Amino acid sequence: MVRADVPLMTDDLLEETTPDIPPGYQRMNWFQGFGRAIGPLYELDHADGSYVRAFLVCEHHTNGMKNCHGGMLMAFADMALGHAVTMQTNRFWVTVRMVTDFVDAAHVGDWVEGTGTIAASEDDFFTVQGRIWSGPKVIMTATGVFKALGIRPQRKRPQ
Amino acid sequence: MVRADVPLMTDDLLEETTPDIPPGYQRMNWFQGFGRAIGPLYELDHADGSYVRAFLVCEHHTNGMKNCHGGMLMAFADMALGHAVTMQTNRFWVTVRMVTDFVDAAHVGDWVEGTGTIAASEDDFFTVQGRIWSGPKVIMTATGVFKALGIRPQRKRPQ
Repeated sequence: MVRADVPLMTDDLLEETTPDIPPGYQRMNWFQGFGRAIGPLYELDHADGSYVRAFLVCEHHTNGMKNCHGGMLMAFADMALGHAVTMQTNRFWVTVRMVTDFVDAAHVGDWVEGTGTIAASEDDFFTVQGRIWSGPKVIMTATGVFKALGIRPQRKRPQ
Repeated sequence: MVRADVPLMTDDLLEETTPDIPPGYQRMNWFQGFGRAIGPLYELDHADGSYVRAFLVCEHHTNGMKNCHGGMLMAFADMALGHAVTMQTNRFWVTVRMVTDFVDAAHVGDWVEGTGTIAASEDDFFTVQGRIWSGPKVIMTATGVFKALGIRPQRKRPQ
């Protein structure tokens, strides 16, 4: 049975139809685990320590309403805010607490971006305030507390 | 090159080696979107309205330390707590706010369970307190606010 709402072909594997990613973003070099399962994710680091992480909402991110699943937005918020600790300290980190406020929906095909800034730190604990958006639309606001661990090895960039 | 830390075969597709799931749990009938990407998830509903949702920590849930990724725990918390609204109202819902506190790590192979109870409700808004654990170990505590939407159709059980 052919259903009108299901594409007859997937173009996932055709590089000719890969979606356009905004200039300056690098695809994150994740090839295992949860990062691969929910990826690809993209990143744009600035010399001043600010950054944006991003992803394109695909079918494997959706809920039953064909919007980005709230769980995906939460997972992305964790990665988008925690990166502020990496940028400032170059240390590994674990998440201690996340507060995520769902402001609006992201749809399939939306380019979703997120960033965070360190609001306070004490000993190994960093409080990061962040925001997730798509174009002019705020999708989520979030605050995270992260504990910094050991120093990261030198980063390998995608090849 | 054969690396000692990478299995030579995957047994994902061999039903003979499917991990044992505790009795009473049903695999959730998710076959698309984010639920499929991060699944399988399991569920045990009781006649009194209480329930447990669960998953087995697999490679596609892990972070770089081979523990369950914090983003996966957050996504699971959303699904584990929000289900309290389904059980009480049989309505769809969206997440408004989640507060997630990371208490301990879950490792590959751990059977992780979670549940929630409605602490308060007003109009269409439900506040749910929940907990995620593995065996005797608490992994996460969480509080969620959910907004109930339309009535759900009759549920199809796995076949």
